[in-house]
Amino acid sequence: MPDPNPVEAFLSANQQRFQDELFELIRIPSVSTLPEHAPDLCRAADFVASKLRDAGMENVEVIPTDKHPLIYADWLHAPGAPTVLCYGHYDVQPAEPLEEWASPPFEPTVRDGSVYARGSADDKGQLYIHIKAVEALHEVHGALPINVKFLIEGEEEVGGESISAYLLDNHEKLKADVALISDTSMYAPGLPSLDIGLRGMIYQEWEATGPAQDLHSGMYGGAAPNAVFGLVELLAKCKSADGVCQIPGFYDDVEPPAPAEKESWERLPFDESEYLNSEVGSSQLTGEPGYSVMERTWARPTFEVHGIGGGFTGPGAKTVIPAKAVAKVSMRLVPNQDPEKLLASINRFVADNTPKGISVKVRGMNASPASMVSPENPFIQKAAAALTETFGTQTVFTRCGGSIPIVGEFSEELGIPTVLMGFGLPDDSLHGPNEKFSLENFQMGIRTVVRFLESLAPA
Amino acid sequence: MPDPNPVEAFLSANQQRFQDELFELIRIPSVSTLPEHAPDLCRAADFVASKLRDAGMENVEVIPTDKHPLIYADWLHAPGAPTVLCYGHYDVQPAEPLEEWASPPFEPTVRDGSVYARGSADDKGQLYIHIKAVEALHEVHGALPINVKFLIEGEEEVGGESISAYLLDNHEKLKADVALISDTSMYAPGLPSLDIGLRGMIYQEWEATGPAQDLHSGMYGGAAPNAVFGLVELLAKCKSADGVCQIPGFYDDVEPPAPAEKESWERLPFDESEYLNSEVGSSQLTGEPGYSVMERTWARPTFEVHGIGGGFTGPGAKTVIPAKAVAKVSMRLVPNQDPEKLLASINRFVADNTPKGISVKVRGMNASPASMVSPENPFIQKAAAALTETFGTQTVFTRCGGSIPIVGEFSEELGIPTVLMGFGLPDDSLHGPNEKFSLENFQMGIRTVVRFLESLAPA
Repeated sequence: MPDPNPVEAFLSANQQRFQDELFELIRIPSVSTLPEHAPDLCRAADFVASKLRDAGMENVEVIPTDKHPLIYADWLHAPGAPTVLCYGHYDVQPAEPLEEWASPPFEPTVRDGSVYARGSADDKGQLYIHIKAVEALHEVHGALPINVKFLIEGEEEVGGESISAYLLDNHEKLKADVALISDTSMYAPGLPSLDIGLRGMIYQEWEATGPAQDLHSGMYGGAAPNAVFGLVELLAKCKSADGVCQIPGFYDDVEPPAPAEKESWERLPFDESEYLNSEVGSSQLTGEPGYSVMERTWARPTFEVHGIGGGFTGPGAKTVIPAKAVAKVSMRLVPNQDPEKLLASINRFVADNTPKGISVKVRGMNASPASMVSPENPFIQKAAAALTETFGTQTVFTRCGGSIPIVGEFSEELGIPTVLMGFGLPDDSLHGPNEKFSLENFQMGIRTVVRFLESLAPA
Repeated sequence: MPDPNPVEAFLSANQQRFQDELFELIRIPSVSTLPEHAPDLCRAADFVASKLRDAGMENVEVIPTDKHPLIYADWLHAPGAPTVLCYGHYDVQPAEPLEEWASPPFEPTVRDGSVYARGSADDKGQLYIHIKAVEALHEVHGALPINVKFLIEGEEEVGGESISAYLLDNHEKLKADVALISDTSMYAPGLPSLDIGLRGMIYQEWEATGPAQDLHSGMYGGAAPNAVFGLVELLAKCKSADGVCQIPGFYDDVEPPAPAEKESWERLPFDESEYLNSEVGSSQLTGEPGYSVMERTWARPTFEVHGIGGGFTGPGAKTVIPAKAVAKVSMRLVPNQDPEKLLASINRFVADNTPKGISVKVRGMNASPASMVSPENPFIQKAAAALTETFGTQTVFTRCGGSIPIVGEFSEELGIPTVLMGFGLPDDSLHGPNEKFSLENFQMGIRTVVRFLESLAPA
């Protein structure tokens, strides 16, 4: 008697190999923000391309760009069936601060059923789910139930300029009915979720200059402007003690979530003290008064400082009045906020609030709007069904406070919705030390994507 | 016919050798704030000790301490004559930021009559003046006109703990009538000055902690406290936009300068726009309204941030909510302010103003009061005469905005006044890049110290 589900049999038989291959990909330190890692980005791109070929994908291309290569592949032999465009990114965030990792960031280490490594969840583990799902279908059936295209980038963590340019020039080549992205998290372990909203983002570097060079604070302290303090003063004016952004007009166009959506969030399993103690780990939470944590992180825009540096920070004491200071800041945007309009407000605010004797240069690093898709969209419905069936639990609709600019671009350039089917977990420590990815979710993810692709085949 | 001034003849004949020796001392990167330079500190101490021996000093000791060695030496064969205790420090500030130096910081380079190098003015060039003055007198006369002791340290830039402890235990050995320190600046080129007042200093490190580890700002932005922003908020509260410190009681005990002293400052050659453009190099000056630049930098206490660091500051964009941030801060103190009383106010202020969700640890690094000496003091009068004679211009009495804690300790522990006879210039860029020292002042300084020591001999 043949196996009642040959794809499942194939997946079970190859579970260990899939994991070994993923670990190989994770070992490549493809940190896109650091120029010295450029060769690693190329190695990671080549690895992904070769695995796409092994999975039966055709026309596999590693496309050079100004920065890091794109990878394109397709399999288009299902006439009449829809086309899914699978997106992922093989680049990762820097691993610093290294001393806070329990195991080396680029040596995948399994603890308690999860693999700990930079990029394990964001996004290598998740992009690899797509590749292995396609491989399983192709190996078992010799064909795919629908048409599939892959477009994978190496600049997601640095603004994604190359893929944006490529999208603009390749509407026909990339034509599809829906995009599939696995680069987000499930709401809770075992609770399948579809993110139907993402925040947008403005990311900038603010550089303050005071005296022409560092000065001795004994000689000049009291009369010379201090670039670090000037930047501190400016940044402090950006938010009230309550966490309300003070940039004029910042909240003007914010579209609140629909009442039904807001109500559904209240039914999600959420334990604020668990969130505070196990995830955040501070003495208390902060943020705008009058909004729940869900609203603050999913439906409200934020102003955040990601890093600051200036003056003397080595061991010991040095008494300089610093000439320069730099901060990295971002604003997360929600539906209906226009990045261009906000950029103008920010520039005005900085000009109006720069302390005397200081000059501040604002360098834009990226700006993208929020994006939303309707829960009634048929692709979303089929994705929800595939998740519900695989995990045995009703899928919930959530939003994600993070930003995936490509989702907005797929909508604008290709006119297609995106299914955000994430298999990460809330405590995966994305971008932080000890990033991890559940190996069970890795295997369940492959099964879910198999089901989703099968469900899109014409009846 | 014998030379009418044999010491002058000796100084002229040895001018180049003195400079070569100084350059040799400067080449030793004796950065006391950086542990990896400890061997360089020992090398610098040995060099200084050997030059003291060459100068005819006796009982030369290199005294080990918990950190960097002290050097003691004496020559005590002038019974009935006063004893001068010469102080200097052979340690230097770090040279960072290296990219802003026009020539390597530890390779003395002569441009326009000045030697450019870290430590050239602060304090190697100036301590070497004392040694060469003593050598000249000893070589020419076979004896000194008065008794001389040297006490030279290697921790001036890191709080000077070892010399403080040594002072406490060696009152008898260090007994003297006056201390001589050359570690300050002349008011202007060619204008000899005596600093009769120094500001004190409290130096601290403030460390802010928010979440237990860096968090993804997409996931947690809006609800999790941000350590960098928390520190920014706290620091911004420390000073008003006018530069007035907001720590309660900060100005309570400030003793204003005497009317005569204040008037004398108004007669000093001071060009505010020259000061702004050539020295400070910012768009405008800052500081407390209602006070002149002289008052702000000499007679008013300050609050300053010397450095700040936290979160991601590398190239590119990283979207973390930082878990930690650190700032180095100092307060310069003026006469009658009590460091202990202020430390308590600072701790209260930090506790009262730390934003919610953040905790801040204050680590004290040093605390010393301001010090003043009367212009009528006989040693000050003789020092002024020696300067006036050498430079051919009336000596002016100034203050120095910097801090030399040892001056307070000489007063408290040994009960002696200090003559602050500085040969630096206002634009020497102490502690900053491109520190320099005038080679003419080096030679004139030696002649002045020779005259001063001669003038102290009993008639």
